[in-house]
This record gives sequence, C-alpha cells and structure tokens, in this order.
Amino acid sequence: MTKQPKTRVSVRIYGQDYTIVGTESPAHIRLVAAFVDDKMHEFSERNPMLDVPRLAVLTAVNIANEYLKLKQEYDRLAAKLKEEKDGEDDD
Amino acid sequence: MTKQPKTRVSVRIYGQDYTIVGTESPAHIRLVAAFVDDKMHEFSERNPMLDVPRLAVLTAVNIANEYLKLKQEYDRLAAKLKEEKDGEDDD
Repeated sequence: MTKQPKTRVSVRIYGQDYTIVGTESPAHIRLVAAFVDDKMHEFSERNPMLDVPRLAVLTAVNIANEYLKLKQEYDRLAAKLKEEKDGEDDD
Repeated sequence: MTKQPKTRVSVRIYGQDYTIVGTESPAHIRLVAAFVDDKMHEFSERNPMLDVPRLAVLTAVNIANEYLKLKQEYDRLAAKLKEEKDGEDDD
C-alpha cells in the first residue's frame, strides 16, 4: 500500500482559524471546511440565540444526520447493483 | 405531500443536553446523537488540548469529510446503475 502524503491546510470556519491535517487534497479540505462554515452560518441564522459550542454540536448533528441517511441510501443502491450483477451471472 | 409530524427528542452529547426537533423517528435521532457523541469523544482522546467549541467544529469537519466522500461514491454508483439500465434499454 502506498502511504499517502499528509497535507496541512489552513482554513477559517465561523471566524476561527484551523489547521486541518489529512491525506485529502488541499482543494477537498477547503471544500469540506466551506461546507461546515456554510452550515454553521445557516444554523446560526435560524437559531440566533445559540452559543458557539452548541451551534457547532448541532451543526455536527445536522451533517451526521445527512451522512447516515445517505449511508442507508448508498447501501440500498449497492445491494441493488449487486443483485442485478448476480442476476446477469445466472444467465 | 403528507406533512411529516415533528418529533422532539432529548439527547445528551458530550455531557450537554440538547432537544432535537426533526421529522425523523426518535430512534434515528438518538442514533445520530450517539454517532456525534462517539466522534467527539474519539477526537478529544486524540487531541486532549482542544476546547469544546474547536472540538465540536473539528468533529463537524470530520463528519462532513465522510459525508462528501460518500456523496461522490454514491453519485458514481448511481451513474453506473443508470448506465447499466440504459444499456439494457438499448437491447
């Protein structure tokens, strides 16, 4: 297995600077950071009374919800693809 | 379209209580909250110096990363399924 080089990328999320270390490309890391920044701003507009820790946790919950729903949908699709593949093999 | 009833579920994430309002089932909301709670504890073990707001933001980044990677994979799979479907239609 090739060891992926680690990249360090500085990003700003909700007014704070973070250094993200990962094996993903800097472009991908910036995309992820922008996604979280957008979500936090969206959430704070809808809930202006929330302090930053609670806002961040609820943003994490929101993203986790989308992730777990997509995971179910992905597993369903993968099973369907496998089923069709197995069907073809039977021919 | 049927309007989904909203549920309110109390959950505890990283020692704090939250009331989550959503159209998902209470079981799903609890699963999502447990997922975030686990991730925050995982992250804090690896980075014990982080304060809670930064820990929560970096947990959100981590989950967003998994979400966006799964989204790419999902789109790839959906395109493949569509391609195979279109191939069948040509026969």
